[in-house]
Amino acid sequence: MSTRPAAPTRAEFAAWRTATTRWSDDDVFGHMNNARYFDLMDVAVNVHMAEALGTDIRRLPVVGLVAEVSCRYFSEMGYPLDVELGLAVDRIGSSSIVYRIGMFQGAGPEADVARAEGRFVQVYVDNSAGRGAPRRSVPIPDDVRAAVTPLLRERPA
Amino acid sequence: MSTRPAAPTRAEFAAWRTATTRWSDDDVFGHMNNARYFDLMDVAVNVHMAEALGTDIRRLPVVGLVAEVSCRYFSEMGYPLDVELGLAVDRIGSSSIVYRIGMFQGAGPEADVARAEGRFVQVYVDNSAGRGAPRRSVPIPDDVRAAVTPLLRERPA
Amino acid sequence: MSTRPAAPTRAEFAAWRTATTRWSDDDVFGHMNNARYFDLMDVAVNVHMAEALGTDIRRLPVVGLVAEVSCRYFSEMGYPLDVELGLAVDRIGSSSIVYRIGMFQGAGPEADVARAEGRFVQVYVDNSAGRGAPRRSVPIPDDVRAAVTPLLRERPA
Amino acid sequence: MSTRPAAPTRAEFAAWRTATTRWSDDDVFGHMNNARYFDLMDVAVNVHMAEALGTDIRRLPVVGLVAEVSCRYFSEMGYPLDVELGLAVDRIGSSSIVYRIGMFQGAGPEADVARAEGRFVQVYVDNSAGRGAPRRSVPIPDDVRAAVTPLLRERPA
Repeated sequence: MSTRPAAPTRAEFAAWRTATTRWSDDDVFGHMNNARYFDLMDVAVNVHMAEALGTDIRRLPVVGLVAEVSCRYFSEMGYPLDVELGLAVDRIGSSSIVYRIGMFQGAGPEADVARAEGRFVQVYVDNSAGRGAPRRSVPIPDDVRAAVTPLLRERPA
Repeated sequence: MSTRPAAPTRAEFAAWRTATTRWSDDDVFGHMNNARYFDLMDVAVNVHMAEALGTDIRRLPVVGLVAEVSCRYFSEMGYPLDVELGLAVDRIGSSSIVYRIGMFQGAGPEADVARAEGRFVQVYVDNSAGRGAPRRSVPIPDDVRAAVTPLLRERPA
Repeated sequence: MSTRPAAPTRAEFAAWRTATTRWSDDDVFGHMNNARYFDLMDVAVNVHMAEALGTDIRRLPVVGLVAEVSCRYFSEMGYPLDVELGLAVDRIGSSSIVYRIGMFQGAGPEADVARAEGRFVQVYVDNSAGRGAPRRSVPIPDDVRAAVTPLLRERPA
Repeated sequence: MSTRPAAPTRAEFAAWRTATTRWSDDDVFGHMNNARYFDLMDVAVNVHMAEALGTDIRRLPVVGLVAEVSCRYFSEMGYPLDVELGLAVDRIGSSSIVYRIGMFQGAGPEADVARAEGRFVQVYVDNSAGRGAPRRSVPIPDDVRAAVTPLLRERPA
């Protein structure tokens, strides 16, 4: 684990969203359960897209499905403080988008350092055949591409 | 179901809290899953108590455990709008407190009518023996009683 | 709380289902969070119906939406033991069904006594207009009525 | 995404656990929400450890905290079928363990191919100071090391 990258800071993210926490987010260890971070990442990615497109993204004929996600946990967070979700885009492919989500909590000197960072890969697929049908990957729609391009941020070397 | 009480309005609640919603709150029917409402009620009750007492209520020797809860669903709500949680106290017993939680969402004419109303009964128990030990009910501590008394609201006849 | 009914026993339920528990079901108090019981109740009700009808109940033109739920907690349960879910029907109306769900855990002398009991009221509605559209209550379909009638159990006096 | 590794098969995993699914696992797209897979991975890792050690691992002075997790999604799964969780260990370090978890569902020809594969990195820390206190990484206890060594599986080249 010696080569583990450092926790990112706020400056590395481009769009922001605040999420409230819930009593049930914390597990028996008294901090947010590792799975709950992914519920929060969903919000950061999907709310940005919904607001940029001005529509209910769940009903579009082409939707972004999650192909791969990950999260690195740097320091604990949890209920009851709000979580600030920073969003950036690492890469835009022909049918996929790679997001990074920084999760921050609290005030004071450590508030600028992410408590966790997620990576979230969405692949765009044809959803027009409805629930349960096979979903073929398709090129990223132009309006989606326009919505994420302003979020592109290179990782500091 | 003909005697079902009407949905309450905002005027029937005494303290307020806003909760953000999550993509995963909505189930396959496209609205908030019935279990998620209880995650939100926890927040309304526990945050009020934590703020009134100015302490981490999870580590107190006497804690309020949930003895009974219920929720009536009047109209749909769900992701992505925030939920406004109204809190009131119905009854304060010797060792138990009965809360009502109104859940509101959206703007416009219907925003004054609760989309759901929960009832939440907490019994105070001795938690000093730690996790897993039997927990005996105890009188409500004075500071807890002082924190909930201002929230007492009679139901309109 | 002096008139609180006793915890039911296994004999009061008609159909059974086992659910596994998850690490994240337990909250900071080291037992199952009150909201998670409702996730389990959903399973008991919906799996019975799906198996009785032999179809994916989520895609039917008429679906059962949750109108009201409640749960009384008698003793703690939680991860890692399985939960046995007993299902019974209290009442079948023209468009609504009232279920009772007993939740049992563990072996030994106390295993016959429910750790919690839920009540679950579903109202049948027309879902044919799709997600987000208004949903009008409709008579319970005949096959649904046939699926729940064998579960009718009177509460012992 | 052209270099994406293929989905693993059952032969690549060493220990097995079955988890039931819940109605609320599925999101609006009608399949298991990406965050729920992590709730299932927790079960695979923690149940194996608890059974191998024969104790409640949550109360030990040294506990395994999650440092990093990821999941790759190959094909959909969800409610109501059970999920079979295959567990293997990739690497055992001085204070960390890297697990792989394969998630399988259904019968038939595709049942041998994982629908998702997770990676789960735990770091062992001193938990004796209790909830909220800083947690220092410590060497993996001998009994923990003995519990995971039989699960070591090399990835086929």
